[in-house]
Amino acid sequence: MLTYKFGNLMQKNIGSHGLPDDFFENNRELLAEIHQKINEGFNKGDFGFMKLPFEQPELDRIKKIAVDIRQKFKSVIVLGIGGSCLGALALHQAFNHPFHNQFSSPQIYFLDNVDPELIQALLDVIEIKKTLILVISKSGKTAETLSQFLLFFEKIKRAGSPKEQIIIITDPQKGPLREIAQEEEFVSFSIPPEVGGRYSVLTPVGLLPAAILKIDINALLKGAQTMAKRCQEIKNPAYLYALTHFLLLQQGYNIHVLFPYVYALRGLADWWRQLWAESLGKEGKGPTPVKALGVTDQHSQLQLYMEGPLDKVITFVTVKRFRSRLDIPIHFAPFADIAYLGGHTFNELIYTEQTATEAALTKAKRPNAKLEMDVVSPFELGEFFYCLELATVCCGLMMRINPLNQPGVELGKRYTQALMGREEYQNERLELTDWFFNLSQDEV
Amino acid sequence: MLTYKFGNLMQKNIGSHGLPDDFFENNRELLAEIHQKINEGFNKGDFGFMKLPFEQPELDRIKKIAVDIRQKFKSVIVLGIGGSCLGALALHQAFNHPFHNQFSSPQIYFLDNVDPELIQALLDVIEIKKTLILVISKSGKTAETLSQFLLFFEKIKRAGSPKEQIIIITDPQKGPLREIAQEEEFVSFSIPPEVGGRYSVLTPVGLLPAAILKIDINALLKGAQTMAKRCQEIKNPAYLYALTHFLLLQQGYNIHVLFPYVYALRGLADWWRQLWAESLGKEGKGPTPVKALGVTDQHSQLQLYMEGPLDKVITFVTVKRFRSRLDIPIHFAPFADIAYLGGHTFNELIYTEQTATEAALTKAKRPNAKLEMDVVSPFELGEFFYCLELATVCCGLMMRINPLNQPGVELGKRYTQALMGREEYQNERLELTDWFFNLSQDEV
Repeated sequence: MLTYKFGNLMQKNIGSHGLPDDFFENNRELLAEIHQKINEGFNKGDFGFMKLPFEQPELDRIKKIAVDIRQKFKSVIVLGIGGSCLGALALHQAFNHPFHNQFSSPQIYFLDNVDPELIQALLDVIEIKKTLILVISKSGKTAETLSQFLLFFEKIKRAGSPKEQIIIITDPQKGPLREIAQEEEFVSFSIPPEVGGRYSVLTPVGLLPAAILKIDINALLKGAQTMAKRCQEIKNPAYLYALTHFLLLQQGYNIHVLFPYVYALRGLADWWRQLWAESLGKEGKGPTPVKALGVTDQHSQLQLYMEGPLDKVITFVTVKRFRSRLDIPIHFAPFADIAYLGGHTFNELIYTEQTATEAALTKAKRPNAKLEMDVVSPFELGEFFYCLELATVCCGLMMRINPLNQPGVELGKRYTQALMGREEYQNERLELTDWFFNLSQDEV
Repeated sequence: MLTYKFGNLMQKNIGSHGLPDDFFENNRELLAEIHQKINEGFNKGDFGFMKLPFEQPELDRIKKIAVDIRQKFKSVIVLGIGGSCLGALALHQAFNHPFHNQFSSPQIYFLDNVDPELIQALLDVIEIKKTLILVISKSGKTAETLSQFLLFFEKIKRAGSPKEQIIIITDPQKGPLREIAQEEEFVSFSIPPEVGGRYSVLTPVGLLPAAILKIDINALLKGAQTMAKRCQEIKNPAYLYALTHFLLLQQGYNIHVLFPYVYALRGLADWWRQLWAESLGKEGKGPTPVKALGVTDQHSQLQLYMEGPLDKVITFVTVKRFRSRLDIPIHFAPFADIAYLGGHTFNELIYTEQTATEAALTKAKRPNAKLEMDVVSPFELGEFFYCLELATVCCGLMMRINPLNQPGVELGKRYTQALMGREEYQNERLELTDWFFNLSQDEV
């Protein structure tokens, strides 16, 4: 079960820099108000992600086709970026062997970039005839995904069979990818229109790749259900994560760090980083999410976290037990700097380092909290996804901003299309020519 | 040649939020003073990294042994963390195929974590008899590296030959690893005592792994030399990067983003992130470094960068040309949302997206700059490493802090050793038992 531990955010543990010890009682009304808004919004059709744990019309089709894909293909390439990639990637990293592609089939690749060197390298290693392409874009208009789709469509047309090797995940009705799926008779799945990209991990966007990778998607959904039920109470992990971070943000803690101490959970930090940044960063406000990884970043970021400005809230993500156990052998016992390690396990070492870091931060009066799982499991990842999604909405409502939109990315998209020569954006092209390309470029 | 472009940090391009247009002239004296301090410090023996482009006593040995290793081994595992990993990892990512380990020999693994699941997974994929272990720790006391060393020493002792399969890189005289290297007659290389871990990429720490991976280390050093010479002038990329970031930090821009638009350069951001955080984050001060990756993070962080608080300075890292060229084919031309892509190249697309993002940020009056290379090459990475190292020292001196130490990580290390049962740290163990483990742990 996922637990949020927040004692080390409070004055009783870290002194006057922390949250007042009665912060929860003081904000019970605020939470009740937000809770009501969320329920009202949900009933109106907003916050579509909240129904996903309970409504999965395509679940059986997903499972069936996943079995088929595992048998037929040597590689699966996911074409998707942002919300169309990060959830499935986090699931892959959580449950598959870290060196999966070196010896497992089907290999899986998440192509969330358009770097020509990277794409060329991918073409080097796959056998196009034995490759399935999953094209994921909610709008069906994402430039990166569409350009990759054009490339792979061309390759498969020459060497294989597009109808059998391309699956589309997009809006059920709208957008060019939906029309193409119909025209070309591609297998397709739907992203519910009321679920935004960064909240879509529990739609086919995350579930189909997960099922292909043999991840137990029933357990994943069960975890999300359980969390959804826990969140009917005002005192739940999602609201508490949101409230503590909101209050600390108001106190000037504008950098929020997610710090997994489990290598397999590093992708959760990337997934959360998009969710938190894109949902809350607007109207001149918003915390900056930062991902870190234990123990690695003790040797990179910890100095700053310990002695830098008082602007960070650090949330560890931990497990009570790892899925394997590994001994540290005893050698070179005469050396005091080595002797204390041998005879322990790596499990003890990583657990101890996390505890020591937590203690050191607490001693330095730095606010820190913990999201703790029993073990990395689909159930607990389901809890995690739902919890942080709801926390994001809750925090956004407290900040009085809209956590569901992303107006700030539109201008860059228009400029891209203008520079790529799209007719409708001629005005933007002229603007760039008249203004941007004439800016003085000091350099050294 | 590496160029720093900083026009979009200035008022003439982004309005009143930017740096005054005469910031350089206004701070010429400050830079001259810092320049003198750096030269004096260097002459006293501080800033040891500054001599590395010119003094490489072990270079021939490195090259010779690298050839030998490539012939003999199927895998190379680097045991090192923080500064003992990030430079070599960045070089590997810059110059090797992104899926190197799937078909190239020797495979290379950077084991900068003690997660038992990860280490077990690595044991699954290597053949211990045909594996070389590079143990890297400047102090020779790093808990993570030593515990891994114990594990691999045990495995190799049973199945192979430690003397032939283990190489040590550590202090030339001091520390347990140096003593062990002598006792066991391991091949070893030295990290000059006056070069700190995070400044050590141009010592055997970075050079030996690079040479094993066939990276041209002469060109790397040549690039660093060239940058060192450029930095004899006051107006150089290192000092300008430092000065602009220092002045913007004083204006409240406390989050510094490095945003490569080249997949191969993602590791440079990790390397820089350690350097900037650990060097500058102390005495309650210091910017928070954030790494991002183009184009991927346009779909994750750009909303925040465009419309969040005015607290970020964003530095793109770009290349004028990529090392491969890939066409976007023409299909589905009736769809306006697709038609504008076909007929271009992915090279144009990524270049255009970077330009569009830069223009959008500039339009939104957000300070942004650019570190531009011609192409990813060892020479230009040599320039980059030296430039950012010197920039870090320069910025630290402007901030009046010591950019070479990391006092804030000591407490966590002591707590770890205390909890692992090391005798000398009994007091810390008692402290933790009396205090930390008794803290009230509110949870939900």
